Amino acid sequence: MALYGAELTALGEGYVEISLEPKDFLTRPSGAFHGGVLAALADTAGGYAAATAKKEDPYFVTVELKISYLRPAQGERLQVEGRVIKDGRSLTFCQVDIYAVTGEKKTHCAMATLTMMRLQNGAA
Amino acid sequence: MALYGAELTALGEGYVEISLEPKDFLTRPSGAFHGGVLAALADTAGGYAAATAKKEDPYFVTVELKISYLRPAQGERLQVEGRVIKDGRSLTFCQVDIYAVTGEKKTHCAMATLTMMRLQNGAA
Amino acid sequence: MALYGAELTALGEGYVEISLEPKDFLTRPSGAFHGGVLAALADTAGGYAAATAKKEDPYFVTVELKISYLRPAQGERLQVEGRVIKDGRSLTFCQVDIYAVTGEKKTHCAMATLTMMRLQNGAA
Amino acid sequence: MALYGAELTALGEGYVEISLEPKDFLTRPSGAFHGGVLAALADTAGGYAAATAKKEDPYFVTVELKISYLRPAQGERLQVEGRVIKDGRSLTFCQVDIYAVTGEKKTHCAMATLTMMRLQNGAA
Repeated sequence: MALYGAELTALGEGYVEISLEPKDFLTRPSGAFHGGVLAALADTAGGYAAATAKKEDPYFVTVELKISYLRPAQGERLQVEGRVIKDGRSLTFCQVDIYAVTGEKKTHCAMATLTMMRLQNGAA
Repeated sequence: MALYGAELTALGEGYVEISLEPKDFLTRPSGAFHGGVLAALADTAGGYAAATAKKEDPYFVTVELKISYLRPAQGERLQVEGRVIKDGRSLTFCQVDIYAVTGEKKTHCAMATLTMMRLQNGAA
Repeated sequence: MALYGAELTALGEGYVEISLEPKDFLTRPSGAFHGGVLAALADTAGGYAAATAKKEDPYFVTVELKISYLRPAQGERLQVEGRVIKDGRSLTFCQVDIYAVTGEKKTHCAMATLTMMRLQNGAA
Repeated sequence: MALYGAELTALGEGYVEISLEPKDFLTRPSGAFHGGVLAALADTAGGYAAATAKKEDPYFVTVELKISYLRPAQGERLQVEGRVIKDGRSLTFCQVDIYAVTGEKKTHCAMATLTMMRLQNGAA
Protein backbone atom coordinates (compact mmCIF):
# COMPACT_ATOMS: atom_id res chain seq x y z
CA MET A 1 0.00 0.00 0.00
CA ALA A 2 2.62 2.54 1.10
CA LEU A 3 4.98 1.57 -1.72
CA TYR A 4 2.25 2.06 -4.28
CA GLY A 5 0.93 5.27 -2.73
CA ALA A 6 -2.48 3.64 -2.36
CA GLU A 7 -5.03 4.80 0.20
CA LEU A 8 -8.06 3.25 1.83
CA THR A 9 -11.04 5.31 0.68
CA ALA A 10 -13.94 3.27 2.09
CA LEU A 11 -14.34 0.51 4.64
CA GLY A 12 -17.39 -1.43 5.82
CA GLU A 13 -18.15 -4.86 7.19
CA GLY A 14 -16.98 -7.16 4.41
CA TYR A 15 -16.19 -4.26 2.08
CA VAL A 16 -13.10 -2.21 1.32
CA GLU A 17 -12.22 0.37 -1.31
CA ILE A 18 -8.67 1.35 -2.23
CA SER A 19 -7.64 4.20 -4.56
CA LEU A 20 -4.33 4.98 -6.20
CA GLU A 21 -2.90 7.12 -8.96
CA PRO A 22 -0.59 5.95 -11.70
CA LYS A 23 3.14 6.23 -11.07
CA ASP A 24 5.92 5.45 -13.52
CA PHE A 25 7.08 2.26 -11.81
CA LEU A 26 3.51 0.88 -11.72
CA THR A 27 2.66 1.39 -15.37
CA ARG A 28 3.69 0.29 -18.84
CA PRO A 29 4.98 2.84 -21.38
CA SER A 30 1.34 3.14 -22.60
CA GLY A 31 0.30 4.44 -19.18
CA ALA A 32 -1.75 1.34 -18.26
CA PHE A 33 -1.05 -0.32 -14.92
CA HIS A 34 1.00 -3.52 -15.03
CA GLY A 35 -1.05 -6.71 -14.68
CA GLY A 36 1.14 -7.74 -11.77
CA VAL A 37 0.28 -4.55 -9.91
CA LEU A 38 -3.44 -5.25 -10.41
CA ALA A 39 -2.96 -8.77 -9.01
CA ALA A 40 -1.10 -7.36 -6.00
CA LEU A 41 -3.92 -4.83 -5.42
CA ALA A 42 -6.53 -7.60 -5.64
CA ASP A 43 -4.57 -9.61 -3.07
CA THR A 44 -4.37 -6.61 -0.71
CA ALA A 45 -8.06 -5.69 -1.11
CA GLY A 46 -9.12 -9.31 -0.54
CA GLY A 47 -7.08 -9.49 2.66
CA TYR A 48 -8.52 -6.22 4.01
CA ALA A 49 -12.09 -7.19 3.10
CA ALA A 50 -11.70 -10.56 4.84
CA ALA A 51 -10.29 -8.86 7.94
CA THR A 52 -13.28 -6.48 8.25
CA ALA A 53 -15.55 -9.48 8.76
CA LYS A 54 -13.45 -11.10 11.53
CA LYS A 55 -12.64 -8.23 13.82
CA GLU A 56 -11.31 -10.20 16.79
CA ASP A 57 -9.00 -12.35 14.73
CA PRO A 58 -8.27 -10.54 11.50
CA TYR A 59 -5.24 -12.51 10.32
CA PHE A 60 -5.45 -14.15 6.91
CA VAL A 61 -3.24 -15.70 4.27
CA THR A 62 -4.23 -15.92 0.64
CA VAL A 63 -4.81 -19.52 -0.47
CA GLU A 64 -5.29 -18.70 -4.14
CA LEU A 65 -6.26 -15.83 -6.39
CA LYS A 66 -7.56 -15.69 -9.95
CA ILE A 67 -7.66 -12.42 -11.85
CA SER A 68 -9.18 -11.76 -15.30
CA TYR A 69 -7.91 -8.76 -17.23
CA LEU A 70 -10.88 -7.16 -18.97
CA ARG A 71 -9.45 -3.91 -20.35
CA PRO A 72 -6.24 -1.85 -20.09
CA ALA A 73 -6.16 -0.22 -16.63
CA GLN A 74 -5.57 3.37 -17.64
CA GLY A 75 -7.06 6.52 -16.14
CA GLU A 76 -6.61 9.31 -13.60
CA ARG A 77 -6.82 6.75 -10.82
CA LEU A 78 -7.69 3.15 -10.02
CA GLN A 79 -10.54 2.22 -7.71
CA VAL A 80 -10.21 -1.25 -6.18
CA GLU A 81 -13.36 -2.68 -4.55
CA GLY A 82 -13.05 -5.80 -2.37
CA ARG A 83 -16.09 -7.69 -1.07
CA VAL A 84 -16.53 -10.76 1.12
CA ILE A 85 -18.77 -13.24 -0.69
CA LYS A 86 -18.72 -15.88 2.05
CA ASP A 87 -17.20 -15.57 5.48
CA GLY A 88 -16.67 -19.13 6.70
CA ARG A 89 -15.15 -20.61 9.83
CA SER A 90 -11.69 -21.11 8.37
CA LEU A 91 -12.04 -19.96 4.76
CA THR A 92 -13.27 -16.61 3.45
CA PHE A 93 -14.16 -16.12 -0.23
CA CYS A 94 -13.75 -12.64 -1.69
CA GLN A 95 -14.33 -10.88 -4.97
CA VAL A 96 -12.36 -7.83 -6.09
CA ASP A 97 -13.27 -5.52 -8.97
CA ILE A 98 -10.84 -2.95 -10.31
CA TYR A 99 -11.99 0.16 -12.16
CA ALA A 100 -10.08 2.89 -13.98
CA VAL A 101 -11.64 6.26 -13.20
CA THR A 102 -11.24 9.43 -15.28
CA GLY A 103 -13.58 12.28 -14.36
CA GLU A 104 -17.07 10.76 -14.18
CA LYS A 105 -16.13 7.73 -16.27
CA LYS A 106 -15.57 4.41 -14.48
CA THR A 107 -14.30 1.49 -16.57
CA HIS A 108 -14.22 -2.12 -15.34
CA CYS A 109 -10.63 -3.30 -15.94
CA ALA A 110 -10.18 -6.46 -13.91
CA MET A 111 -12.14 -8.90 -11.75
CA ALA A 112 -10.64 -11.32 -9.25
CA THR A 113 -11.87 -14.07 -6.95
CA LEU A 114 -9.82 -15.17 -3.95
CA THR A 115 -9.83 -17.76 -1.19
CA MET A 116 -8.38 -16.55 2.11
CA MET A 117 -7.58 -18.74 5.15
CA ARG A 118 -7.83 -17.43 8.69
CA LEU A 119 -4.77 -17.95 10.85
CA GLN A 120 -5.49 -19.41 14.31
CA ASN A 121 -4.37 -16.94 17.00
CA GLY A 122 -2.65 -14.88 14.37
CA ALA A 123 -0.20 -17.72 13.58
CA ALA A 124 0.07 -19.88 10.44
CA MET B 1 11.99 -6.91 -13.35
CA ALA B 2 14.31 -3.93 -12.88
CA LEU B 3 12.29 -2.61 -9.94
CA TYR B 4 12.44 -5.96 -8.23
CA GLY B 5 16.12 -6.56 -9.00
CA ALA B 6 15.15 -9.77 -10.82
CA GLU B 7 17.34 -11.34 -13.49
CA LEU B 8 16.74 -13.79 -16.30
CA THR B 9 18.82 -16.87 -15.44
CA ALA B 10 17.70 -19.31 -18.16
CA LEU B 11 15.84 -19.05 -21.45
CA GLY B 12 14.78 -21.69 -23.97
CA GLU B 13 11.99 -22.19 -26.45
CA GLY B 14 8.88 -22.07 -24.30
CA TYR B 15 10.88 -21.87 -21.07
CA VAL B 16 12.17 -19.06 -18.91
CA GLU B 17 13.76 -18.89 -15.46
CA ILE B 18 13.93 -15.74 -13.34
CA SER B 19 15.83 -15.31 -10.07
CA LEU B 20 15.64 -12.65 -7.43
CA GLU B 21 16.71 -12.03 -3.86
CA PRO B 22 14.49 -10.74 -1.07
CA LYS B 23 14.39 -6.98 -0.53
CA ASP B 24 12.58 -5.15 2.25
CA PHE B 25 9.85 -3.69 0.04
CA LEU B 26 9.09 -7.14 -1.46
CA THR B 27 8.69 -9.05 1.79
CA ARG B 28 6.53 -9.19 4.88
CA PRO B 29 8.07 -8.61 8.32
CA SER B 30 8.55 -12.42 8.53
CA GLY B 31 10.88 -12.29 5.53
CA ALA B 32 8.47 -14.12 3.18
CA PHE B 33 7.72 -12.51 -0.19
CA HIS B 34 4.34 -10.78 -0.50
CA GLY B 35 1.72 -12.79 -2.37
CA GLY B 36 1.21 -9.87 -4.72
CA VAL B 37 4.89 -9.94 -5.67
CA LEU B 38 4.64 -13.66 -6.47
CA ALA B 39 1.61 -12.97 -8.69
CA ALA B 40 3.50 -10.19 -10.49
CA LEU B 41 6.48 -12.54 -11.02
CA ALA B 42 4.16 -15.25 -12.39
CA ASP B 43 2.68 -12.72 -14.80
CA THR B 44 6.14 -11.65 -15.98
CA ALA B 45 7.45 -15.20 -16.35
CA GLY B 46 4.34 -16.24 -18.28
CA GLY B 47 4.75 -13.32 -20.68
CA TYR B 48 8.43 -14.09 -21.30
CA ALA B 49 7.79 -17.81 -21.77
CA ALA B 50 5.00 -17.10 -24.27
CA ALA B 51 7.27 -14.72 -26.18
CA THR B 52 10.05 -17.32 -26.56
CA ALA B 53 7.68 -19.50 -28.58
CA LYS B 54 6.57 -16.74 -31.02
CA LYS B 55 9.84 -15.11 -31.99
CA GLU B 56 8.59 -13.06 -34.94
CA ASP B 57 5.63 -11.62 -33.09
CA PRO B 58 6.37 -11.82 -29.41
CA TYR B 59 3.74 -9.40 -28.05
CA PHE B 60 1.27 -10.74 -25.52
CA VAL B 61 -1.25 -9.54 -22.99
CA THR B 62 -2.33 -11.61 -20.01
CA VAL B 63 -5.97 -12.71 -20.28
CA GLU B 64 -6.15 -14.24 -16.83
CA LEU B 65 -3.91 -15.68 -14.15
CA LYS B 66 -4.55 -18.02 -11.23
CA ILE B 67 -1.98 -18.51 -8.53
CA SER B 68 -2.08 -20.99 -5.61
CA TYR B 69 0.06 -20.20 -2.57
CA LEU B 70 1.52 -23.48 -1.34
CA ARG B 71 4.01 -22.37 1.31
CA PRO B 72 5.60 -19.12 2.61
CA ALA B 73 8.09 -17.90 -0.01
CA GLN B 74 11.12 -17.45 2.16
CA GLY B 75 14.75 -18.22 1.34
CA GLU B 76 18.05 -16.87 0.02
CA ARG B 77 16.42 -16.33 -3.36
CA LEU B 78 13.33 -17.11 -5.42
CA GLN B 79 13.50 -19.16 -8.60
CA VAL B 80 10.58 -18.57 -10.97
CA GLU B 81 10.13 -21.14 -13.77
CA GLY B 82 7.74 -20.35 -16.63
CA ARG B 83 6.72 -22.94 -19.23
CA VAL B 84 4.49 -22.85 -22.29
CA ILE B 85 1.96 -25.67 -22.02
CA LYS B 86 0.20 -24.94 -25.30
CA ASP B 87 1.23 -22.42 -27.93
CA GLY B 88 -1.90 -21.75 -29.98
CA ARG B 89 -2.67 -19.41 -32.86
CA SER B 90 -4.05 -16.60 -30.73
CA LEU B 91 -3.90 -17.99 -27.18
CA THR B 92 -0.91 -19.37 -25.30
CA PHE B 93 -1.33 -21.32 -22.05
CA CYS B 94 1.53 -21.17 -19.54
CA GLN B 95 2.36 -22.65 -16.17
CA VAL B 96 4.66 -20.95 -13.68
CA ASP B 97 6.19 -22.57 -10.59
CA ILE B 98 7.92 -20.53 -7.91
CA TYR B 99 10.53 -22.02 -5.59
CA ALA B 100 12.33 -20.62 -2.56
CA VAL B 101 15.99 -21.68 -2.68
CA THR B 102 18.35 -21.79 0.29
CA GLY B 103 21.67 -23.54 -0.32
CA GLU B 104 20.77 -26.91 -1.90
CA LYS B 105 17.17 -26.81 -0.69
CA LYS B 106 14.43 -25.91 -3.18
CA THR B 107 10.89 -25.51 -1.81
CA HIS B 108 7.80 -25.25 -4.02
CA CYS B 109 5.99 -22.08 -2.84
CA ALA B 110 3.49 -21.22 -5.54
CA MET B 111 2.05 -22.54 -8.79
CA ALA B 112 0.23 -20.48 -11.38
CA THR B 113 -1.57 -21.10 -14.66
CA LEU B 114 -2.08 -18.30 -17.17
CA THR B 115 -3.78 -17.58 -20.47
CA MET B 116 -1.92 -15.13 -22.72
CA MET B 117 -3.27 -13.57 -25.93
CA ARG B 118 -1.01 -12.62 -28.81
CA LEU B 119 -1.34 -9.07 -30.10
CA GLN B 120 -1.71 -8.76 -33.87
CA ASN B 121 1.20 -6.69 -35.26
CA GLY B 122 2.20 -5.79 -31.75
CA ALA B 123 -1.07 -3.89 -31.18
CA ALA B 124 -3.97 -4.70 -28.88
CA MET C 1 -29.11 -29.53 -20.34
CA ALA C 2 -31.42 -32.32 -21.51
CA LEU C 3 -29.47 -34.97 -19.61
CA TYR C 4 -29.69 -32.96 -16.41
CA GLY C 5 -33.36 -32.04 -16.89
CA ALA C 6 -32.37 -28.36 -16.75
CA GLU C 7 -34.47 -25.62 -18.31
CA LEU C 8 -33.81 -22.07 -19.43
CA THR C 9 -35.95 -19.85 -17.17
CA ALA C 10 -34.75 -16.37 -18.23
CA LEU C 11 -32.78 -14.93 -21.12
CA GLY C 12 -31.67 -11.37 -21.89
CA GLU C 13 -28.79 -9.70 -23.70
CA GLY C 14 -25.76 -10.94 -21.81
CA TYR C 15 -27.86 -12.74 -19.20
CA VAL C 16 -29.19 -16.25 -18.81
CA GLU C 17 -30.89 -18.16 -16.01
CA ILE C 18 -31.09 -21.96 -15.80
CA SER C 19 -33.10 -23.98 -13.27
CA LEU C 20 -32.98 -27.63 -12.37
CA GLU C 21 -34.16 -29.98 -9.67
CA PRO C 22 -32.02 -32.54 -7.88
CA LYS C 23 -31.90 -36.05 -9.33
CA ASP C 24 -30.17 -39.07 -7.86
CA PHE C 25 -27.37 -39.21 -10.42
CA LEU C 26 -26.57 -35.49 -9.91
CA THR C 27 -26.28 -35.51 -6.12
CA ARG C 28 -24.22 -37.00 -3.32
CA PRO C 29 -25.86 -39.25 -0.72
CA SER C 30 -26.39 -36.09 1.41
CA GLY C 31 -28.62 -34.65 -1.32
CA ALA C 32 -26.17 -31.88 -2.32
CA PHE C 33 -25.29 -31.54 -6.00
CA HIS C 34 -21.90 -32.89 -7.06
CA GLY C 35 -19.23 -30.23 -7.54
CA GLY C 36 -18.63 -31.54 -11.04
CA VAL C 37 -22.28 -30.95 -11.95
CA LEU C 38 -22.01 -27.36 -10.71
CA ALA C 39 -18.92 -26.84 -12.87
CA ALA C 40 -20.74 -28.27 -15.88
CA LEU C 41 -23.71 -25.95 -15.23
CA ALA C 42 -21.37 -22.95 -14.94
CA ASP C 43 -19.80 -23.90 -18.27
CA THR C 44 -23.21 -24.18 -19.93
CA ALA C 45 -24.53 -20.93 -18.47
CA GLY C 46 -21.36 -19.07 -19.49
CA GLY C 47 -21.68 -20.34 -23.05
CA TYR C 48 -25.35 -19.33 -23.32
CA ALA C 49 -24.73 -15.89 -21.80
CA ALA C 50 -21.85 -15.24 -24.21
CA ALA C 51 -24.04 -16.30 -27.15
CA THR C 52 -26.83 -13.85 -26.23
CA ALA C 53 -24.41 -10.95 -26.76
CA LYS C 54 -23.20 -12.08 -30.22
CA LYS C 55 -26.40 -12.95 -32.01
CA GLU C 56 -25.05 -13.21 -35.55
CA ASP C 57 -22.15 -15.43 -34.60
CA PRO C 58 -23.01 -17.16 -31.37
CA TYR C 59 -20.38 -19.93 -31.36
CA PHE C 60 -18.02 -20.10 -28.43
CA VAL C 61 -15.57 -22.46 -26.80
CA THR C 62 -14.61 -22.21 -23.15
CA VAL C 63 -10.98 -21.17 -22.70
CA GLU C 64 -10.92 -21.62 -18.94
CA LEU C 65 -13.25 -21.74 -15.98
CA LYS C 66 -12.71 -21.25 -12.27
CA ILE C 67 -15.39 -22.19 -9.77
CA SER C 68 -15.39 -21.57 -6.00
CA TYR C 69 -17.62 -23.78 -3.86
CA LEU C 70 -19.13 -21.59 -1.15
CA ARG C 71 -21.72 -23.88 0.47
CA PRO C 72 -23.30 -27.32 -0.13
CA ALA C 73 -25.69 -26.98 -3.09
CA GLN C 74 -28.81 -28.47 -1.55
CA GLY C 75 -32.41 -27.37 -1.99
CA GLU C 76 -35.65 -27.81 -3.90
CA ARG C 77 -33.92 -26.55 -7.02
CA LEU C 78 -30.77 -24.86 -8.29
CA GLN C 79 -30.86 -21.45 -9.98
CA VAL C 80 -27.86 -20.77 -12.21
CA GLU C 81 -27.34 -17.15 -13.28
CA GLY C 82 -24.85 -16.37 -16.07
CA ARG C 83 -23.77 -12.81 -16.94
CA VAL C 84 -21.45 -11.34 -19.55
CA ILE C 85 -18.96 -9.08 -17.80
CA LYS C 86 -17.08 -8.05 -20.93
CA ASP C 87 -17.99 -8.84 -24.50
CA GLY C 88 -14.79 -8.38 -26.50
CA ARG C 89 -13.92 -8.91 -30.14
CA SER C 90 -12.59 -12.45 -29.73
CA LEU C 91 -12.86 -13.08 -25.97
CA THR C 92 -15.93 -12.83 -23.74
CA PHE C 93 -15.63 -12.82 -19.94
CA CYS C 94 -18.56 -14.22 -17.95
CA GLN C 95 -19.52 -14.68 -14.33
CA VAL C 96 -21.87 -17.40 -13.13
CA ASP C 97 -23.52 -17.57 -9.70
CA ILE C 98 -25.30 -20.68 -8.50
CA TYR C 99 -28.00 -20.57 -5.83
CA ALA C 100 -29.90 -23.31 -4.01
CA VAL C 101 -33.54 -22.31 -3.68
CA THR C 102 -36.02 -23.74 -1.15
CA GLY C 103 -39.31 -21.88 -0.86
CA GLU C 104 -38.40 -18.19 -0.48
CA LYS C 105 -34.83 -18.94 0.63
CA LYS C 106 -32.01 -18.45 -1.88
CA THR C 107 -28.52 -19.53 -0.81
CA HIS C 108 -25.35 -18.63 -2.74
CA CYS C 109 -23.57 -21.97 -3.30
CA ALA C 110 -20.96 -21.36 -5.98
CA MET C 111 -19.44 -18.58 -8.04
CA ALA C 112 -17.52 -19.01 -11.26
CA THR C 113 -15.62 -16.82 -13.70
CA LEU C 114 -15.00 -17.94 -17.29
CA THR C 115 -13.20 -16.86 -20.43
CA MET C 116 -14.97 -17.81 -23.67
CA MET C 117 -13.49 -17.51 -27.19
CA ARG C 118 -15.65 -16.82 -30.21
CA LEU C 119 -15.24 -19.20 -33.12
CA GLN C 120 -14.75 -17.54 -36.51
CA ASN C 121 -17.58 -18.58 -38.86
CA GLY C 122 -18.73 -21.11 -36.35
CA ALA C 123 -15.49 -23.13 -36.74
CA ALA C 124 -12.65 -23.63 -34.27
CA MET D 1 -17.44 -42.44 -12.02
CA ALA D 2 -20.07 -45.15 -12.45
CA LEU D 3 -22.36 -42.87 -14.45
CA TYR D 4 -19.55 -41.98 -16.81
CA GLY D 5 -18.26 -45.56 -17.09
CA ALA D 6 -14.89 -44.38 -15.81
CA GLU D 7 -12.40 -46.69 -14.15
CA LEU D 8 -9.45 -46.23 -11.84
CA THR D 9 -6.40 -47.44 -13.81
CA ALA D 10 -3.57 -46.43 -11.46
CA LEU D 11 -3.27 -45.38 -7.83
CA GLY D 12 -0.27 -44.34 -5.73
CA GLU D 13 0.41 -42.10 -2.78
CA GLY D 14 -0.70 -38.70 -4.03
CA TYR D 15 -1.38 -39.98 -7.55
CA VAL D 16 -4.42 -41.32 -9.34
CA GLU D 17 -5.20 -42.18 -12.95
CA ILE D 18 -8.71 -42.53 -14.36
CA SER D 19 -9.66 -43.77 -17.84
CA LEU D 20 -12.89 -43.56 -19.76
CA GLU D 21 -14.21 -43.99 -23.25
CA PRO D 22 -16.45 -41.54 -25.10
CA LYS D 23 -20.20 -42.06 -24.81
CA ASP D 24 -22.91 -40.12 -26.59
CA PHE D 25 -24.15 -38.26 -23.53
CA LEU D 26 -20.59 -37.15 -22.63
CA THR D 27 -19.62 -35.71 -26.00
CA ARG D 28 -20.55 -32.97 -28.45
CA PRO D 29 -21.74 -33.85 -31.96
CA SER D 30 -18.06 -33.51 -33.06
CA GLY D 31 -17.12 -36.40 -30.76
CA ALA D 32 -15.14 -34.23 -28.32
CA PHE D 33 -15.95 -34.51 -24.62
CA HIS D 34 -18.02 -31.68 -23.13
CA GLY D 35 -16.02 -29.15 -21.13
CA GLY D 36 -18.30 -29.74 -18.18
CA VAL D 37 -17.47 -33.45 -18.20
CA LEU D 38 -13.75 -32.62 -18.14
CA ALA D 39 -14.30 -30.31 -15.16
CA ALA D 40 -16.23 -33.05 -13.36
CA LEU D 41 -13.43 -35.54 -14.06
CA ALA D 42 -10.84 -33.07 -12.75
CA ASP D 43 -12.88 -32.65 -9.58
CA THR D 44 -13.12 -36.42 -9.10
CA ALA D 45 -9.43 -37.05 -9.80
CA GLY D 46 -8.41 -34.25 -7.42
CA GLY D 47 -10.55 -35.71 -4.65
CA TYR D 48 -9.13 -39.23 -5.13
CA ALA D 49 -5.53 -37.97 -5.29
CA ALA D 50 -6.00 -35.94 -2.08
CA ALA D 51 -7.50 -38.99 -0.34
CA THR D 52 -4.51 -41.23 -1.19
CA ALA D 53 -2.28 -38.93 0.85
CA LYS D 54 -4.47 -38.91 4.00
CA LYS D 55 -5.31 -42.56 4.46
CA GLU D 56 -6.75 -42.38 7.99
CA ASP D 57 -9.03 -39.46 7.25
CA PRO D 58 -9.65 -39.38 3.53
CA TYR D 59 -12.66 -37.03 3.40
CA PHE D 60 -12.35 -33.89 1.34
CA VAL D 61 -14.49 -31.18 -0.20
CA THR D 62 -13.39 -29.13 -3.18
CA VAL D 63 -12.80 -25.49 -2.25
CA GLU D 64 -12.21 -24.30 -5.81
CA LEU D 65 -11.15 -25.62 -9.18
CA LYS D 66 -9.73 -23.93 -12.27
CA ILE D 67 -9.55 -25.75 -15.57
CA SER D 68 -7.91 -24.57 -18.82
CA TYR D 69 -9.10 -26.14 -22.06
CA LEU D 70 -6.05 -26.63 -24.27
CA ARG D 71 -7.41 -28.70 -27.17
CA PRO D 72 -10.62 -30.60 -28.12
CA ALA D 73 -10.77 -33.75 -25.99
CA GLN D 74 -11.31 -36.31 -28.70
CA GLY D 75 -9.84 -39.80 -28.96
CA GLU D 76 -10.34 -43.50 -28.25
CA ARG D 77 -10.24 -42.73 -24.54
CA LEU D 78 -9.44 -40.06 -21.98
CA GLN D 79 -6.67 -40.47 -19.44
CA VAL D 80 -7.07 -38.28 -16.36
CA GLU D 81 -3.99 -37.91 -14.13
CA GLY D 82 -4.38 -36.36 -10.67
CA ARG D 83 -1.42 -35.42 -8.48
CA VAL D 84 -1.07 -33.92 -5.02
CA ILE D 85 1.21 -30.89 -5.23
CA LYS D 86 1.05 -30.02 -1.54
CA ASP D 87 -0.56 -32.04 1.21
CA GLY D 88 -1.16 -29.59 4.07
CA ARG D 89 -2.79 -29.90 7.47
CA SER D 90 -6.22 -28.72 6.37
CA LEU D 91 -5.75 -27.84 2.67
CA THR D 92 -4.45 -30.06 -0.13
CA PHE D 93 -3.43 -28.60 -3.49
CA CYS D 94 -3.78 -30.84 -6.55
CA GLN D 95 -3.07 -30.66 -10.26
CA VAL D 96 -4.98 -32.69 -12.84
CA ASP D 97 -3.95 -33.20 -16.47
CA ILE D 98 -6.33 -34.71 -19.00
CA TYR D 99 -5.10 -36.43 -22.15
CA ALA D 100 -6.91 -37.82 -25.18
CA VAL D 101 -5.36 -41.13 -26.17
CA THR D 102 -5.66 -42.77 -29.61
CA GLY D 103 -3.33 -45.70 -30.20
CA GLU D 104 0.15 -44.52 -29.16
CA LYS D 105 -0.76 -40.86 -29.42
CA LYS D 106 -1.40 -38.90 -26.20
CA THR D 107 -2.63 -35.31 -26.55
CA HIS D 108 -2.78 -32.85 -23.65
CA CYS D 109 -6.37 -31.51 -23.67
CA ALA D 110 -6.90 -29.84 -20.31
CA MET D 111 -5.05 -28.88 -17.15
CA ALA D 112 -6.63 -28.06 -13.82
CA THR D 113 -5.51 -26.89 -10.39
CA LEU D 114 -7.65 -27.47 -7.31
CA THR D 115 -7.76 -26.67 -3.61
CA MET D 116 -9.30 -29.40 -1.45
CA MET D 117 -10.21 -29.06 2.25
CA ARG D 118 -10.07 -32.00 4.63
CA LEU D 119 -13.20 -32.65 6.65
CA GLN D 120 -12.63 -33.14 10.39
CA ASN D 121 -13.85 -36.61 11.43
CA GLY D 122 -15.44 -37.03 8.05
CA ALA D 123 -17.88 -34.14 8.72
CA ALA D 124 -18.01 -30.68 7.15
